[in-house]
Amino acid sequence: MAEIARFGVSIDNQLVKKFDALIARKGYATRSEAVRDMIREALVEQEWESGDRETVGTITIVYNHHTRELDHALTDMQHKSFNQIISALHVHLDAHNCLEVLVVKGKSRDIRKIADRLIGTKGVKHGKLTMTTTGKELV
Amino acid sequence: MAEIARFGVSIDNQLVKKFDALIARKGYATRSEAVRDMIREALVEQEWESGDRETVGTITIVYNHHTRELDHALTDMQHKSFNQIISALHVHLDAHNCLEVLVVKGKSRDIRKIADRLIGTKGVKHGKLTMTTTGKELV
Amino acid sequence: MAEIARFGVSIDNQLVKKFDALIARKGYATRSEAVRDMIREALVEQEWESGDRETVGTITIVYNHHTRELDHALTDMQHKSFNQIISALHVHLDAHNCLEVLVVKGKSRDIRKIADRLIGTKGVKHGKLTMTTTGKELV
Amino acid sequence: MAEIARFGVSIDNQLVKKFDALIARKGYATRSEAVRDMIREALVEQEWESGDRETVGTITIVYNHHTRELDHALTDMQHKSFNQIISALHVHLDAHNCLEVLVVKGKSRDIRKIADRLIGTKGVKHGKLTMTTTGKELV
Repeated sequence: MAEIARFGVSIDNQLVKKFDALIARKGYATRSEAVRDMIREALVEQEWESGDRETVGTITIVYNHHTRELDHALTDMQHKSFNQIISALHVHLDAHNCLEVLVVKGKSRDIRKIADRLIGTKGVKHGKLTMTTTGKELV
Repeated sequence: MAEIARFGVSIDNQLVKKFDALIARKGYATRSEAVRDMIREALVEQEWESGDRETVGTITIVYNHHTRELDHALTDMQHKSFNQIISALHVHLDAHNCLEVLVVKGKSRDIRKIADRLIGTKGVKHGKLTMTTTGKELV
Repeated sequence: MAEIARFGVSIDNQLVKKFDALIARKGYATRSEAVRDMIREALVEQEWESGDRETVGTITIVYNHHTRELDHALTDMQHKSFNQIISALHVHLDAHNCLEVLVVKGKSRDIRKIADRLIGTKGVKHGKLTMTTTGKELV
Repeated sequence: MAEIARFGVSIDNQLVKKFDALIARKGYATRSEAVRDMIREALVEQEWESGDRETVGTITIVYNHHTRELDHALTDMQHKSFNQIISALHVHLDAHNCLEVLVVKGKSRDIRKIADRLIGTKGVKHGKLTMTTTGKELV
């Protein structure tokens, strides 16, 4: 069972009003939830700064599906890095454009390398690495 | 058929050497490909600045799968925003943690709202919106 | 006199321990101060999203001081935008390289334009716009 | 004397048109200049990834000038880190709010520490580290 702590935040009246307006717009039910989210975001950023810790990222690429070279690169990657790439989603955006999201688990250093390689492949119109987390260390 | 243009870049000798080292590490086959990617990235950033243009984003969330509230929010979202949410991928990271990636197409303003709402839901440990593109305007 | 409010944050025990480690490293004296800072950062981000509100930015550029064209651009800017550019700091980094920081106050849309113009001038090796605030709305 | 190289970029006709519109808005005189800037930006990002290389940053803070604690922290910093902090600019934004920009030269790891310490001091409403460069390695 998780133990719940509680701490108090003293804050200027005007500042907390602006905060309330912000979290209402973002759909947070409580201030606690918003504060916890900001704390977790700071911890995930820190997790990615060291290259050695196991973490999770998603790689999003948009490409023209007629691109042979990318098919090869993707297949190649999924063989070489099959330990890291744990899942993939393919979406047909229109007759020409596809989007692929890969979920990758491993050291942040290795995830960055896989992302660089895929984003750098001919035919990829746009690519991005999103840094997230295994969730294990975040409660 | 796409027409191919060509332009020349004049650049200091030392700068192009550093550029070559950088793109080798990132796995680019040619300088042209690396330059085109930097151009496309700048265009996608600009696409997202106006709230009104149709674009594509992925929303990545990591959460504890015992969280009922999130299930409701996800289901609710997929009903309310079924026009926008075009696909979703669910991954079991471990016995407790799940990752979900949603692919969303629509006005950037609306995609941001869907992302805020999901990321703000209780039980979501980490969430991020990744801004990408329909690919239509990028060749 | 500012009125001080107080609210409680309920948080898992392990999460608050990680938070304490993070803020110790960053040099925060109290959790309240760290939470207030995260709230203010979120508000400043929001302030810059609308283009119309008065805000403050700093523009940092590094350039070769032999570059005539930039001198002209800087002088030109300081005449055209003298209402916005409220101060400037010049640093000689070495025999060739200078750094200049301009403090600019105005609508975020106008500050972005000034930054784009300066960063795009020949001779500027690196330039960045830093989005901050008038401080008026933040307590 | 710097030697100038030249390389060609092959690019789809439509993509180069969009690129031309973008750089016109940003005020670039030539495509070469815009491409060189994108290359330099990528190199500066890489420079900051390793913690050990000498580089330059600016630290921007907005604070209430009645804050004693910050005066001490600033003075303290400027003594402890006098090798790194090479210059500072102080601006009175209004009767209550001040902006201070510090120009810091050193290992990126050390610059981050100084920034964290200052931004974490009570009384600082908003603070940001801007990563730039000595300019030495960029032509």
